[in-house]
Amino acid sequence: MTRLLGLSGSLRKGSFNSALLRNAAELAPDGVSFDIRTLHGIPLYNADEEAAHGLPDAVASLKEAIIAADGVLLATPEYNNGIPGVFKNAIDWASRPPDDIARVFHGRHFAILGASPGGFGTLLAQNHWLPVL
Amino acid sequence: MTRLLGLSGSLRKGSFNSALLRNAAELAPDGVSFDIRTLHGIPLYNADEEAAHGLPDAVASLKEAIIAADGVLLATPEYNNGIPGVFKNAIDWASRPPDDIARVFHGRHFAILGASPGGFGTLLAQNHWLPVL
Repeated sequence: MTRLLGLSGSLRKGSFNSALLRNAAELAPDGVSFDIRTLHGIPLYNADEEAAHGLPDAVASLKEAIIAADGVLLATPEYNNGIPGVFKNAIDWASRPPDDIARVFHGRHFAILGASPGGFGTLLAQNHWLPVL
Repeated sequence: MTRLLGLSGSLRKGSFNSALLRNAAELAPDGVSFDIRTLHGIPLYNADEEAAHGLPDAVASLKEAIIAADGVLLATPEYNNGIPGVFKNAIDWASRPPDDIARVFHGRHFAILGASPGGFGTLLAQNHWLPVL
């Protein structure tokens, strides 16, 4: 079984990117499981909060979901020619603490896709993801 | 009087970037006012929340502070080779609604600076800001 995780970078209920992931899940062939998550519950990153209380539950859960996946699809909206702050914030949290980075981000593939009502369909946001990944 | 606004992209109390702005303010010559703000109180962007309740007070206040300034200094940390999600999120909010973008972001200069304990001092984060600005 190949396990895929789809992360939607929009908190909007009617999100095009969440819908894109649901469609991708329907197209997944036999032998592929497809878990879809949104970023609800992940707070704004604050190093003081991390030092005082460690990782929020929603962040720990996101990290475990990534670790459990063979591949991760990031469905990204585009805001102001770039990655939505909400989405980058979740990845910033997932990269904490640094000792866990290899366990979370190495050994699996990450792919970027995006949906937008605009004509260039998140091209600049996808480009903006490259140095991060 | 030239009015400068310094925005610190870190929520940390001991933020190097907030300290950088305080030092810049001390170096400002006569005839320059220097307002420093952090991003505390700005929630995660959610288009459903915006549609239901409009802009949060902290976002409206940030937009007015930008509009009141002749120039804006963005003091950016660097997370994962890019802009901190927290900082991008604040700019995503400040760009709402689109009819206000010209009033907030045109007619004034934006400059980027950053402080980091690392040897490359937010170089990649500053580069990541370019397509946004």
